[in-house]
Amino acid sequence: MSKRAHDVLETVDTVVGYTTYVNLIRSLIKDKHIVSTTMKKEIERVEAAIDIALEGKSCAIVSSGDPGIYAMSSLVFEMCKAKDIVIIPPVSAGKMKNEDSGTLLQVEVVPGIPALCSGASLLGAPLSHDFAVISLSDLLTPWELIERRIEAAAEADFVIVLYNPKSKKRNWQLESAQKIILNHRDRNTPVGIVTSAMREEQKVKIFPLGNLHTAPVNMQTTVFIGSSASAQYLDFMVTPRGYSKKYSVVS
Amino acid sequence: MSKRAHDVLETVDTVVGYTTYVNLIRSLIKDKHIVSTTMKKEIERVEAAIDIALEGKSCAIVSSGDPGIYAMSSLVFEMCKAKDIVIIPPVSAGKMKNEDSGTLLQVEVVPGIPALCSGASLLGAPLSHDFAVISLSDLLTPWELIERRIEAAAEADFVIVLYNPKSKKRNWQLESAQKIILNHRDRNTPVGIVTSAMREEQKVKIFPLGNLHTAPVNMQTTVFIGSSASAQYLDFMVTPRGYSKKYSVVS
Repeated sequence: MSKRAHDVLETVDTVVGYTTYVNLIRSLIKDKHIVSTTMKKEIERVEAAIDIALEGKSCAIVSSGDPGIYAMSSLVFEMCKAKDIVIIPPVSAGKMKNEDSGTLLQVEVVPGIPALCSGASLLGAPLSHDFAVISLSDLLTPWELIERRIEAAAEADFVIVLYNPKSKKRNWQLESAQKIILNHRDRNTPVGIVTSAMREEQKVKIFPLGNLHTAPVNMQTTVFIGSSASAQYLDFMVTPRGYSKKYSVVS
Repeated sequence: MSKRAHDVLETVDTVVGYTTYVNLIRSLIKDKHIVSTTMKKEIERVEAAIDIALEGKSCAIVSSGDPGIYAMSSLVFEMCKAKDIVIIPPVSAGKMKNEDSGTLLQVEVVPGIPALCSGASLLGAPLSHDFAVISLSDLLTPWELIERRIEAAAEADFVIVLYNPKSKKRNWQLESAQKIILNHRDRNTPVGIVTSAMREEQKVKIFPLGNLHTAPVNMQTTVFIGSSASAQYLDFMVTPRGYSKKYSVVS
């Protein structure tokens, strides 16, 4: 956790979040008012946070990883917009006039370390060149658009990071993605599979693309599909930046 | 800085890095052996770090942002591979046998908050749906490949994050990228321009794609080009996750 995230959690009145994430920081926020809900209650959670803030209390909505990557921050902005609430960044606080009260809220997004970075760090250096990030969840996005993005990223030789590869109810998307990518990439392309990075249940494994369909994945898994330049070295997966093409890396 | 990064910097014998970044953490590492070099000396820096580690000392190489995203971590792996140095992740330390000494090194990559997350947090929530990350520097990558990736990402409606948009010697790439993307996206698509996120010189601004060529950018700038779903709300740039299509966000 960054110092800023720690400071914010220490100073706010209320903490709102998915129960699993709230439990991970329980020791830090034990004296706070806590609103925690189960999964798929995102709208209810953000609604509660906005109501609390409109009452004049400070409120933190917690996410795992970075709040801006497949997480809660966009929903805060979407709902403020839908409710016509005027929001300003925290830096403008000094510029606030007295008549600006009412439905005016300050919103600060505190960045974090996303799963694409924590997972990559455990694999070695798979993201050291251009990459595309795609969620395989078709709950809020039509599969046709997801498919088009996988195709484009595979064709243009991006490293591809897949979020939400599989859930209990969605079990065919990862194999479909594998088939599309195999049209453009070698079967032996390394694929890094990281589940629950930096947590107790952490698992890190490298598979060849041709065997990706046999990899154990769940909703806590991030999948890193190498570009044509990615390679495995011992237990690590590395995508070179290109120094060795231009300079001699052995002196 | 994460707690892990702080702990590592406190315990290592030596810190190696680009002078500008070393100066940002000078107060933390004042009692350490420091090897700092100017820009474009990446290979010399990593070489020095490997030599120090092979002498049996612990050594941290520092980057800004996340070390795995257009930064130094891949070069460490590339050079260890080129020098036939056997490297292992830190978790395997307990498994080390006595005979494994010699040219065997433990390598830990400590993840950080990349500019794509710190920049996004200052803009609002531009990365809450699929995105592609592309460096416009053609020093180590042929421009034809960069162009192909911009084209693919634009065509498949990814939010596009551009690193290294312009330097003193490279001044035409951002305008070329803009032209390619304008073939697929509306001139009024919001583009977030963030320079030196979270540092004193921080600048945050939103431009329409049609005027991107007039935006002030340098090597400390990250450019966020919206997808067809991205929108500006007051001073914020937001890419919705799609909740409002599926559910009513106003109750």
